[in-house]
Amino acid sequence: MAVPSPGYSLTLRVQTPVSITATSELAAAVGRAGGSITALDVAESGHESMVVDVSCNTTDAEHGQIVRDALNALEGVTVRNISDRTFLMHLGGKLEVVPKVALRNRDDLSRAYTPGVARVCMAIAENPEDARNLTIKRNTIAVVTDGSAVLGLGNIGPAAALPVMEGKAALFKQFANVDAWPVCLDTQDTEEIIMIVKALAPVYGGVNLEDIAAPRCFEIEARLREELDIPVFHDDQHGTAIVTLAALNNALRVVGKQIDKVRIVVSGVGAAGNAIIQLLVARGASNVIAAGRNGAISRADVSSDPHRQWLAEHTNPEQFTGTLKEAMVGADVFIGVSAPNILDEADIEAMNQDAIVFAMANPDPEVDPIAASRHAAVVATGRSDYPNQINNVLAFPGFFRGLLDAGVSEITDEMLLAAADAISARVSQAELNPGFIIPSVFDPHVAADVAEAVSTAAAKNK
Amino acid sequence: MAVPSPGYSLTLRVQTPVSITATSELAAAVGRAGGSITALDVAESGHESMVVDVSCNTTDAEHGQIVRDALNALEGVTVRNISDRTFLMHLGGKLEVVPKVALRNRDDLSRAYTPGVARVCMAIAENPEDARNLTIKRNTIAVVTDGSAVLGLGNIGPAAALPVMEGKAALFKQFANVDAWPVCLDTQDTEEIIMIVKALAPVYGGVNLEDIAAPRCFEIEARLREELDIPVFHDDQHGTAIVTLAALNNALRVVGKQIDKVRIVVSGVGAAGNAIIQLLVARGASNVIAAGRNGAISRADVSSDPHRQWLAEHTNPEQFTGTLKEAMVGADVFIGVSAPNILDEADIEAMNQDAIVFAMANPDPEVDPIAASRHAAVVATGRSDYPNQINNVLAFPGFFRGLLDAGVSEITDEMLLAAADAISARVSQAELNPGFIIPSVFDPHVAADVAEAVSTAAAKNK
Repeated sequence: MAVPSPGYSLTLRVQTPVSITATSELAAAVGRAGGSITALDVAESGHESMVVDVSCNTTDAEHGQIVRDALNALEGVTVRNISDRTFLMHLGGKLEVVPKVALRNRDDLSRAYTPGVARVCMAIAENPEDARNLTIKRNTIAVVTDGSAVLGLGNIGPAAALPVMEGKAALFKQFANVDAWPVCLDTQDTEEIIMIVKALAPVYGGVNLEDIAAPRCFEIEARLREELDIPVFHDDQHGTAIVTLAALNNALRVVGKQIDKVRIVVSGVGAAGNAIIQLLVARGASNVIAAGRNGAISRADVSSDPHRQWLAEHTNPEQFTGTLKEAMVGADVFIGVSAPNILDEADIEAMNQDAIVFAMANPDPEVDPIAASRHAAVVATGRSDYPNQINNVLAFPGFFRGLLDAGVSEITDEMLLAAADAISARVSQAELNPGFIIPSVFDPHVAADVAEAVSTAAAKNK
Repeated sequence: MAVPSPGYSLTLRVQTPVSITATSELAAAVGRAGGSITALDVAESGHESMVVDVSCNTTDAEHGQIVRDALNALEGVTVRNISDRTFLMHLGGKLEVVPKVALRNRDDLSRAYTPGVARVCMAIAENPEDARNLTIKRNTIAVVTDGSAVLGLGNIGPAAALPVMEGKAALFKQFANVDAWPVCLDTQDTEEIIMIVKALAPVYGGVNLEDIAAPRCFEIEARLREELDIPVFHDDQHGTAIVTLAALNNALRVVGKQIDKVRIVVSGVGAAGNAIIQLLVARGASNVIAAGRNGAISRADVSSDPHRQWLAEHTNPEQFTGTLKEAMVGADVFIGVSAPNILDEADIEAMNQDAIVFAMANPDPEVDPIAASRHAAVVATGRSDYPNQINNVLAFPGFFRGLLDAGVSEITDEMLLAAADAISARVSQAELNPGFIIPSVFDPHVAADVAEAVSTAAAKNK
């Protein structure tokens, strides 16, 4: 299923003999090797040879080598240098810390720093609530990870997680003008992480937990919610749950079914699966089957893990027992946040009429979406190269914008539900179809709509 | 000694009857009340009355009330509103986190975030040194405080310390393009602070400790220097020592004395005093007397505190015993980093010919600088409203620029000495005089010169 992607985009600097067909031969060689040309720029030109920068997308690192070899194999052609545009983009990091105030002269310095700043400090010392007005706390959140479950890469540690957290912070600013700062912790001890985040809190108006492995993430989130007076959001849970419900709202509209009447099978009972199921239940879903590695969870499964126990008590009203594949028979909705290629076409065929399939394992979905779409009415994935990408970027920037605007100290189910509905509502009845159940991540209105929905829900709560 | 300062700058919105002399009467009233007018803007004008924005500097918050009352006392005049320009400047905080990369479309997103970012993460996981190239670690430092000794305000806590740390971060960016982030810790436990800073280190290329009370700051700094592989700088120690030595270099040039021949009395044996004395000794000062609250420290003072013990062993070769005032008799140099108004004019008169007085207690110096200048050849303070301001801003931005450029993991005395000399050297022989021994904090060349000196010293060390 690999297609050339700008995530693997290379520029190869190539020396080639001068001829009328030189550049077209280069382009043809790249094409034959499976690369997708995005630009050809002549960098230098002489009487006998010229230098051409060949930019192309490839499928992975190995494929880049194949493209290079294909060019080198042309007569008289030498690849001098390959620059990887993804790596170039990350050089020196992706964020900077910029003053909002000018410090051009003595007067500026006297106000922004000493001696004037002393008065601002004393105002906060006397009235701690003023920190939300007079410091970056008003608009700043921490993006906290321990590097233990980064993307699909696993436990790669805090330093290697930083490029993801920087990207996340960039998205927060770009989509919702939230100042987000990466906090990559060199510890994976639950108590240490809790203690550190609490100690860091004076600077922040909210905490976004990110890519922390289950079950540690549950304990950390629950304790921080209890012990901090700023909102704590775990994107892998809450962000994923919001966008999944948003997509499901519209998928159900497409097929004309009701959430309280459908049978929903969720594959994966980690951070995402748990949060999705809790939000579906909060929205009124009455027949959810949670399937882990050992199949459907029913009341028979007694667990010391409180999340497993909650699932056992609040899902599977028919007390179905069996494997995931067995649970799929007759199901209306499949939601996968688990592992690649665990279902095949026959499993989708066995579902109810007008089935809905969200296969969100990344980068490879639970079932081939092309095969699934031969039987299901609506298919969505986490990928950008298929229709209906269920992407947390739709939720987290606007969600935090709303939290900060409303000065919220605690996140409620009402806020999560309101955010999901705001995302669903961005797809109008006229636009809605099986291939467009969720807005584009570049829809410029989503973040503002989500923010307003969250603020409004917060106001009702007060 | 209070003079109106832009740190206490107000804009008063005043309604006044229309007359030819209305604005001059307002100005005169402000002047009589001791305020210093900076602007008069007519905001609205009618037939009978007009609204004028009167901007002025005052000496402190109480003085602002006096100015307001003086205006209200004028016939027909009403002060509608006072806005404090210092507070306005701090609204919403003074920093923002800005992406260095555009995220306009899917291709951008694929490279800066998923899926492309995964390759960057894996590169760092395989070769941790790459973090310095591919993340913000390359150019980012933490400005760490526990809020226990903020400016002269004392133990006001981490939230109230944030405006200072934001200002510091703004200065880092403005003067040396260093990205600095405030870390205000809600703990004052030495071991917790050490543990937290170590856990945060993956994101940072250096640590600037700030406004942490002695003796805790010594332990924290020493342990972090030992246990981290990024440089740890305590501005209250190292920054102050660098600028003090820089000023002393030039003051000694003015009076034609040598550092190894003069008697130097240092008042204050906290963080700053200790670091200053250590750097003076490293530069060759042979006759330093350290005076604490109980007078001069000599070999007779046995202390369990290793810093006191070091002072007892490395200073006061003549084993002088007595009070600070007694130590001043015949001294060539006085350096005060202690408390306001502990010396008077007679103490300065008792010093040697061509005395040098650095009275750096903030905001009120150890001795009135006007009185001191009647007897000393060179007088400097920490204040901006007298000549020769000894201000750490001259040191810390360029110092960290140099550390980051050179990829330094440890700070050495050679780097501190080189930084001090670079600052001294910005004052040319032609410019040097008793009222100009140290460059202006707005000298645009200082930070680059300091950075280069630090990089060069680092290169020699390798």
